[in-house]
Amino acid sequence: MDGGGSERSAGVGVHPGVVPLSYLLGTWRGQGEGGFPTISTFQYGEELHFSHPGNKPVIAYSQKTWKLNSGEPMHAEAGYWRPKPDGTLEVVISQSTGLLELQKGTYNAQDKVVKLYSELVANASKVREISRVFKLVNGELSYVVEMATSLTSLQPHLKASLKKL
Amino acid sequence: MDGGGSERSAGVGVHPGVVPLSYLLGTWRGQGEGGFPTISTFQYGEELHFSHPGNKPVIAYSQKTWKLNSGEPMHAEAGYWRPKPDGTLEVVISQSTGLLELQKGTYNAQDKVVKLYSELVANASKVREISRVFKLVNGELSYVVEMATSLTSLQPHLKASLKKL
Repeated sequence: MDGGGSERSAGVGVHPGVVPLSYLLGTWRGQGEGGFPTISTFQYGEELHFSHPGNKPVIAYSQKTWKLNSGEPMHAEAGYWRPKPDGTLEVVISQSTGLLELQKGTYNAQDKVVKLYSELVANASKVREISRVFKLVNGELSYVVEMATSLTSLQPHLKASLKKL
Repeated sequence: MDGGGSERSAGVGVHPGVVPLSYLLGTWRGQGEGGFPTISTFQYGEELHFSHPGNKPVIAYSQKTWKLNSGEPMHAEAGYWRPKPDGTLEVVISQSTGLLELQKGTYNAQDKVVKLYSELVANASKVREISRVFKLVNGELSYVVEMATSLTSLQPHLKASLKKL
């Protein structure tokens, strides 16, 4: 037994519950831009990775970002996307900042749109709510993250566009 | 800029806050045994991975387990270990089951013992508390996970011993 728990790529051994989201499986890389009323706008490089154990309706998700000019690591997060039989989607994420998210939402397999909204944000000093919308447009995966804090209502924080490697 | 956010191994570019835990950095593999009053005892293969972005006092943690006879994937979890300047340790974990953990605890750099206890367990139907103790003994990393549920007080659930690859 070398390794075990091997991860499958899209189309091979995908659990039926994951098929509608199988277009995500793989590694995506690109650039994003962040901002918020309380901070300056910034750019970042990003890599997203979605993988799948094949035998369970779960997608493992990991993300990291870096400064474009130096490559210095910035943010990272990891978690699991859990499509449900009723067509809803549950996502759990832990962030390198210590923040924890439980997100609930929906996916549209035909339009390749995923909409998530935080049911729980824990261990954050200021963040109260987070929404995430992912869209596949012309083969590029784009997302918008909105955030609400103790000072500011829900509004855009991050947006990026990524190409599959 | 290829990749960015490169991860460092122990001893190279380790953030001062991570030095006391740098013995963890790398990949560990071995076997474990699980049990609980409400389930049958079971064995599993396991791989743990600890990595470090170098510029921040954070260790990225990921784990996966598999059935020993077939290699079929079982559990997976991922998160971040965040050593604090006051000598305490905060750990956030998301699990493939959807469970989220915020753990707080301590580490003893000389004895290479880490003790963690859940401050928050979220999105679990039965689990109420989780404690995790990691020890390095004769170069092997062993751990014990204890769990309390709505039916059962805190008691051993998982134990494993892992060698660094």
